[in-house]
Parts: sequence; structure tokens; C-alpha cells
Amino acid sequence: MVETETAMTPKKTYAVGVDMGATTIKSCVVDLNGKILDQLTVDTKASKGPEIVVQQIMVTVQELFTKHKPAECLGIGIGAPGVVNVNTGTVLYPPNFADWTEVALEQVIRKTFPLPVSIENDANCAALAEAKHGAGSDVKDFIFVIWGTGVGGGIILDREIYRGPFGGAGEIGHVSIDYNGPLCNCGNRGCIEAYIGQRYLSARTKEILESEAHEGVRSKIQELVEGNLVRIEPTTISMAAQQGDRTAIEILEEAGDLLGCTLASVINVLDIRTVVVGGGISAAPKFVFDAIHKGVASRVLKPHRLAIRILRATLGNSAGMIGAASLVM
Amino acid sequence: MVETETAMTPKKTYAVGVDMGATTIKSCVVDLNGKILDQLTVDTKASKGPEIVVQQIMVTVQELFTKHKPAECLGIGIGAPGVVNVNTGTVLYPPNFADWTEVALEQVIRKTFPLPVSIENDANCAALAEAKHGAGSDVKDFIFVIWGTGVGGGIILDREIYRGPFGGAGEIGHVSIDYNGPLCNCGNRGCIEAYIGQRYLSARTKEILESEAHEGVRSKIQELVEGNLVRIEPTTISMAAQQGDRTAIEILEEAGDLLGCTLASVINVLDIRTVVVGGGISAAPKFVFDAIHKGVASRVLKPHRLAIRILRATLGNSAGMIGAASLVM
Repeated sequence: MVETETAMTPKKTYAVGVDMGATTIKSCVVDLNGKILDQLTVDTKASKGPEIVVQQIMVTVQELFTKHKPAECLGIGIGAPGVVNVNTGTVLYPPNFADWTEVALEQVIRKTFPLPVSIENDANCAALAEAKHGAGSDVKDFIFVIWGTGVGGGIILDREIYRGPFGGAGEIGHVSIDYNGPLCNCGNRGCIEAYIGQRYLSARTKEILESEAHEGVRSKIQELVEGNLVRIEPTTISMAAQQGDRTAIEILEEAGDLLGCTLASVINVLDIRTVVVGGGISAAPKFVFDAIHKGVASRVLKPHRLAIRILRATLGNSAGMIGAASLVM
Repeated sequence: MVETETAMTPKKTYAVGVDMGATTIKSCVVDLNGKILDQLTVDTKASKGPEIVVQQIMVTVQELFTKHKPAECLGIGIGAPGVVNVNTGTVLYPPNFADWTEVALEQVIRKTFPLPVSIENDANCAALAEAKHGAGSDVKDFIFVIWGTGVGGGIILDREIYRGPFGGAGEIGHVSIDYNGPLCNCGNRGCIEAYIGQRYLSARTKEILESEAHEGVRSKIQELVEGNLVRIEPTTISMAAQQGDRTAIEILEEAGDLLGCTLASVINVLDIRTVVVGGGISAAPKFVFDAIHKGVASRVLKPHRLAIRILRATLGNSAGMIGAASLVM
């Protein structure tokens, strides 16, 4: 258990950020400039149920407090997948977490660590990190896209997270670009996630490589997965593209163009002209970002077209935990 | 010229609202409860150039001031089509206004009438009117759609207009629902306006009636335009639908469903769950609103699905001028 010092209030020098992923829990100590001073990763054990997961969070935070004085800590911020009720500090139905219905995580954590605790959706955390310390630190308003397994997002308005009246705003991945398009796992058709999310993009690449039109053409992608097309991942496509593979380049260019199409609609509604793209793809070659830019600029309304900027996120995989720590700063 | 009283400040009891349309200028005197006390309409004379249009505005306002004391007037609000720079009070390139590039309308009006003057985009004015005095008066946040010649929109956040960092937010009509869809006059493909805007909906109806599948089927629409299909207008379709015409009902139901598809994407991004639909269609039969609701509810993300409300705007054609007056209240 942590004890707060009661005599003189010591200077607060850092915050703890926790990124609660379905596979690993990443925790860190972040100073007031957003610099990571210390970090550690543990297994989430998501299949073991919420009690074990909460315990895993406790263990990592406790571990960080052995090296950093709790009395100097501003608080603990947690980024969680799924639906987060910011007002009650409750995490609801995070995908891929067994037996997790509703957990009042904020309350539970605060019981052990008598510090300010704040919980937020993980994509919003990453957006906030880019706003405070990353690619978006010089802009007041931007649209954040996290392009990886799925396609998530966040909206930064006046340097703060826009949550919407019910707390669930920013689902850029579920903007449909074709009402007759492929079925998305949300139940709708044509969501951008159903085109460029990891599973869909890999499946589409496999389909292209197996198509008649592709017969006789040898792609680097096939080499990289040693002919086993089920093993294709976006990083495989990206790697092949970097080696100059035409098929891989075309697939990623098309994906960028379609994301641009989505963003054109979103920009027409919000008139926010800067987009920060993070997630796995933030390591992708520049031509993907150029394709996104072209996709937006060729479709968005003329007055909005001015000054469209597509920026590469700069905080990588650390964005989630840095943003979580920022919640209590 | 109007003179302000300088001795005792009289009680402010009303505002003047001006709706600057391409055909007519509608002006009114609105009390503090949003009730129209007086109104008049003049020809815009948009083809005669900006000087004449400005003169027409002056004339109507002057006329209203012969019956209402300028000293009791809070100010003059103006709703204008096209791009409005709210900060400078400038109206840029309103469509269908000859020779109008940029006019510092606020400054010009204030020179003649020494009162607070405020200019805003016309769709935003209508949204504001519904927020303050209409269908949205009991909700803090809603999406406003104006469905008529084109498809416009406005976003009300916390009872105020959300303009976005550059002032052009709310273009719901230019959310694309099919990236390979029909060409919109904005240059993009598949914008909802290119499906359900007046011109497109009329053309589509004509096409359906002329199609082979329709041969031998007699629609009320044909009767209403006396066989001259170029004369079809949305009101014609609406009228035929109200008389039970199957083709007309199907066309409007499909249009409602497609608008629902658009709104599902917008709601996924904003998590605003109330939509107010105005414009010509706000007089449409209830089944059109049901189709919009069904279109949204069947596509939007599950957590957002709760409490989706599609409301009929209540201020009709007066929304623009009432909202304009609200700008200075």
C-alpha cells in the first residue's frame, strides 16, 4: 500500500500512465514535459477475467512506485479499450477481455493508491498524447486516426478531447464510404475499417495475389511470407512496398486513398484541416501519407481544401500510455 | 437614416432577422421569445449585383423600423448563403448572386444602422433558430439537416453553433456514402446531396418512371405533372406519396434510408444522437422520418444506437430569419 505524505506537500514531478491493451499492459512514469522516465510491460492475462487484469495493473503501478516517490506523483491515468464512462470511471465491455462486463476501475485503483485517478478510451489517450507532446502539439484542433488492427480515432478540439454528449465520439473507423460495401464487424457496410483494418487489408491482399489477373506475377509479399498467404500482415505489405514491390505499393496507395475519402467527409462536417495518423501505419513509407493527402484534397469541399495537412504521429506505441498520464496533468 | 436615442437607454424588446436568399430577402422583427411580430419579403435582385442586393436589405430593414422603434432593437442579424467569415462579417461567393465576390456586409449595414450587426451562414441560422425556439429547444446538442434544393446542415453543441476552427463546419450534404457514386456538383462522388438534393431526386424519379421496369405502371407523379416529367419536384413526389402512390413512397423511403446512412457515419464521429430535419422535406409524411430513423438505427454503432431521435423541424421557412435575429440576442 502507498502512503501519502501529510506534512509538507512535496512538489509533483510526474504522472503514471497505464495503457491497458488486450495482450499487454504498458505502464510508465512521465514527467511534466511528456518524457518517459521509466516504463514496464506485463502480460494483461485478459482471458483470466477482470480481477486478475486489475491485479496486473496494480502490480505494474506498485513496481513503478518502488523507484518513484508516490508523494511526488500527480496521479494515475489509464487508457482502456472499449467504452469508457469518463464520469463514473467505469470500463464497459472491452473487446477480447473475458468476463468483463462493467468495472468501476477508477474507484478500484483509487482504493489502493490514494491519488487522483482518471480513465479514458485508449484512442482518445493516444490523440491527447499527440496533442500535448507529439505531432499535433502546434495545432489547436486535429482529427486523430489510429490505423492498426482496427481503425480508431479521436477528435482534438482546442487542445482537449472532444467526447460528444455521450462520451463515444471519434469513431472515424466506422464512417462508411460505401453503403453497399463489405460487411464490417460493427454490423454496418462499407466502414473504412472494413477496407483497411489489419484483418481486411490482409485478406484483400491475399485475394489480389490469388486472383487471375495476378497469375504469373511474383510479389515480394509472397516471398516474405514464404508462400503462406494467411500469414500476410500490414507490416508485410509495408515491408514489400519499401522494397519497391508494385503490388504492395498499389494496395497501400489504394488504402491511403480510401482513408482520404473517409477523412474528406469528416473534414466537411468538422472543418478541422489537420489530421494526425498513428498506429502501426505511422511507420509506413511517405507515399502512403501522400496517398491519404491526395485522397482528401481531391474530394473535400473547395474552401476546406486549403491547408489540409496529414501528419505522421510521432509517439508510436507509447502514445497510449503518455496520453493516459496526461489525463492527470 | 436611423438615430439612436442617447438620453435614457430604452428597454431592448426585439431583434431584426434577415434571411438573404437567392430569390427573396425575408426580414422580420422577432421578440425575445423568438416570436415573429412583423415580417416582409422583397425580391433579392441577385442578378443585379451586390450593391442592389445590399440596397434591398436596407430597404426592408428601414421599412421594419418605421413600425418598430430602432432604439428598442437589440441589433440586426443576417443569414447568408455561401461562405461567411463570422469574424470579419464578410460574405464570400454566395451561389447564384451575380458579381458577388467578397462583401463586408456587416460593416456596410452598420454604417446605415448604428446597431450591433451579426452575419452567419444561413443553414447555421436555421439550426440556431431550431435550437433556441424550435424542435431542438429541449436538447443541448443536435445535428441539423436542411433538406431542400441542396442538403445543408449545422451542428449545435451546447446550444451554440459549432463552426469549426475555420468557420465552415456542418456540411452534412457533402458526406459521401459511396466513393464510386454519382458525381456531386462539389466535385466529389456519392455525396448525399447527389442522391437526395432537389435536382438529383427529381432526375432520379424521372429515370425510374421512364425505366423499363416501370412500363405499364401508372404513377400519380405522372398525373401531377401532366405527363411532363421534367416538371417533377420533391413536393410533387411528396404529394403523390401522400395520395398513396407506391413509386413515390418507395423513392422517398429510399431517400430517407440514404440520409440515415449518412447520419449514421456523422453520429459515429460526433456521438450526438438527436437530429433535426428541416427544409422542404420537413413537411413530408411521417414515413420519411421513420425511414431516416431506421436508416440510422440499422447502421450506427451499438452504443450510439440508444436514444437516436429524428425530429421534424418546427419553424419551417421562417427558421433562417428567426435564427438570424437570434444571433444578436
